[in-house]
Amino acid sequence: MIGNPVISSDKVEGTTVYNTNGDKLGSIDDLMIDKRSGLVRYAALEFGGFLGMGTDRYPIPWSILKYDTTLDGYVVPMDKSQLENAPHYEPTATPDYTDEYGRKIYDHYGVNWM
Amino acid sequence: MIGNPVISSDKVEGTTVYNTNGDKLGSIDDLMIDKRSGLVRYAALEFGGFLGMGTDRYPIPWSILKYDTTLDGYVVPMDKSQLENAPHYEPTATPDYTDEYGRKIYDHYGVNWM
Repeated sequence: MIGNPVISSDKVEGTTVYNTNGDKLGSIDDLMIDKRSGLVRYAALEFGGFLGMGTDRYPIPWSILKYDTTLDGYVVPMDKSQLENAPHYEPTATPDYTDEYGRKIYDHYGVNWM
Repeated sequence: MIGNPVISSDKVEGTTVYNTNGDKLGSIDDLMIDKRSGLVRYAALEFGGFLGMGTDRYPIPWSILKYDTTLDGYVVPMDKSQLENAPHYEPTATPDYTDEYGRKIYDHYGVNWM
């Protein structure tokens, strides 16, 4: 791997997320970490906020975030409609991250459950 | 596992770290995440700052951090002298996290390299 194989959580948080069309989807608000294994289960994407509504959090599997040095942001292979239909929650209502919930997220993005 | 199996990076950052004697060692400043696997390689403990010097960052394997609900902080099985002799760096000089560096940290704390 080129460059440093690790990244700081401070740097991930606040990073802009684009899709492969170059649309800006939002930014990473937070990372959710499996306490026992230390694996980042998902990144919480802050998205939405149109029509006077507040933004919600869209949990995205870590593995689909690809960093693009030109954009200085992450690129994810999805369009906005796929995101709108994705599991999400209000920032004040973080769900219990059960295996069932995790599988639902991973299934939505076509990522194998770990 | 009792309770939510995941924790937010926002909540980990800033959490106080104690040793098993109840001494306050410092607080978690940041998490370093392996980009490819999504594994938290280490938590950066902010420690030191005596004698008018600034604090340094002490990388600690994620797996030795045990959360104590009574203390509302993490407890690590080490005394201050073990920490003083541990690998550390200045906050402005985050090292490249090579496998060699990672093994050095894990060896210091007697944790198996993953």
